[in-house]
Amino acid sequence: MTALEKLENKNNEGKFICVGLDTDIEKIPVHLKDSQNNILEFNKQIIESTIDNAAAYKLNLAFYECHGIEGINQLEKTLEIIPSDVLTIGDAKRGDLGNTSNMYAKSIFEHYAFDSITLHPYMGHDSISPFLDYSDKLNFVLTLTSNKGAADFEKVKLENGKQLYQLIIEKVKEWNKNNNCGLVYGATHTKELEEDIDLFGQLPILVPGVGAQGGSLKEVINIISRRDKMRLLVNVSRGIIYKDSSKNFAKAAGEELIKLNTMVNEALNK
Amino acid sequence: MTALEKLENKNNEGKFICVGLDTDIEKIPVHLKDSQNNILEFNKQIIESTIDNAAAYKLNLAFYECHGIEGINQLEKTLEIIPSDVLTIGDAKRGDLGNTSNMYAKSIFEHYAFDSITLHPYMGHDSISPFLDYSDKLNFVLTLTSNKGAADFEKVKLENGKQLYQLIIEKVKEWNKNNNCGLVYGATHTKELEEDIDLFGQLPILVPGVGAQGGSLKEVINIISRRDKMRLLVNVSRGIIYKDSSKNFAKAAGEELIKLNTMVNEALNK
Repeated sequence: MTALEKLENKNNEGKFICVGLDTDIEKIPVHLKDSQNNILEFNKQIIESTIDNAAAYKLNLAFYECHGIEGINQLEKTLEIIPSDVLTIGDAKRGDLGNTSNMYAKSIFEHYAFDSITLHPYMGHDSISPFLDYSDKLNFVLTLTSNKGAADFEKVKLENGKQLYQLIIEKVKEWNKNNNCGLVYGATHTKELEEDIDLFGQLPILVPGVGAQGGSLKEVINIISRRDKMRLLVNVSRGIIYKDSSKNFAKAAGEELIKLNTMVNEALNK
Repeated sequence: MTALEKLENKNNEGKFICVGLDTDIEKIPVHLKDSQNNILEFNKQIIESTIDNAAAYKLNLAFYECHGIEGINQLEKTLEIIPSDVLTIGDAKRGDLGNTSNMYAKSIFEHYAFDSITLHPYMGHDSISPFLDYSDKLNFVLTLTSNKGAADFEKVKLENGKQLYQLIIEKVKEWNKNNNCGLVYGATHTKELEEDIDLFGQLPILVPGVGAQGGSLKEVINIISRRDKMRLLVNVSRGIIYKDSSKNFAKAAGEELIKLNTMVNEALNK
């Protein structure tokens, strides 16, 4: 099954929420902190309690890399317990010279066998193309991100009146020869989303910024539901995995996921 | 010693070349390929034969990450053998939401204890600021890169007539409150360098793109030598470490480094 098929299957089942495993040992429940595989143990319980309703899992590489070999080990073991029909996103935000991007693609798509990756567009087409060569994977390119700093460069006005991130959306559509591109577009920009939604074509979109970052889920879904094909993943990390800090954390995460996913479906059917 | 002091000390000793350890097991000499720590063994011999003349070592994380735990292990062991007075660059091209950039900063500056990092500016100030909080480190922000794709977004004209990468240079100067910022500027753009050199102020510059990527070392040095303070690292990776593919590779690398460094000094003293 290609990555796009995995995404579409889950969307067809009414599942739209991607669970973000940004697992920070400072934030996991106290009773797990001292166990040897604390990150893995936390992830395992979260996955068990969310697997029936998750559209995808996004693993933020920074949270694993910062522990060196120990963290990489727990990242690999976490990936092993995610069933193969569920899309995995390596949230790595890579992008480099062609020969280096080749190596990152090998790392994310072959070594870890992630289904998809997030990418920095700044260095242009040849920095992205080694990832695009993997036709069964998905490549989510950053466009308008959910943070304040999006105003510094992403939203800067170009000579032709467009904003930089809009040029990037256009380029990603051109680069989508293998039908394996997607966009990252932050939920904190509903006014812009309203204007940009027709630009997206049928590209899958990964929407972070709901919850901890302040984006409104309902508003975003109302706009996105105009598209013929949803091809949508709404990422929620902290809002799900740290919903409860007691021994009950996994159950609380599972319940929160259902609640959020129901909200999406209600907004869609309205 | 801060990262900037390490760089300046080497520059004061007439050393300007950064050796790029983009160690690819497909390209290392045949006799090393089958050894268990092939990357480490290769790096060790390269470091031994270049240490007297290297201004810095740049480790490209992609080439280690693609081997998973085994690669990370050899990255860590390589860092252990680089003397502490020589600047190390974690060529990671990171940049993410604040809480994620925090983790990447922890990974690169604390876990691996690199002296410096390369960063993607796309997501703006709050994606960079967690790195800037490490006042004794150096943060090389991508501006105009050496690849063809630089034309896609980096060189795009803004409403005010400037190019995007020039706006980034201005912003990096504003962000340099801790005197720990630098720029990555590709050697393949000598015409632009000529125009931009006065924009750089005293920011340290990391110049890739000489050799394998086609940039002219002499031309670049002629322009950069106009600055009061050099604060310069010219990175050469493939041109040094794969200069010779026989058992003689380390000696050849050491000789090539001397040759390149002499070229820089001749261009400077002319």
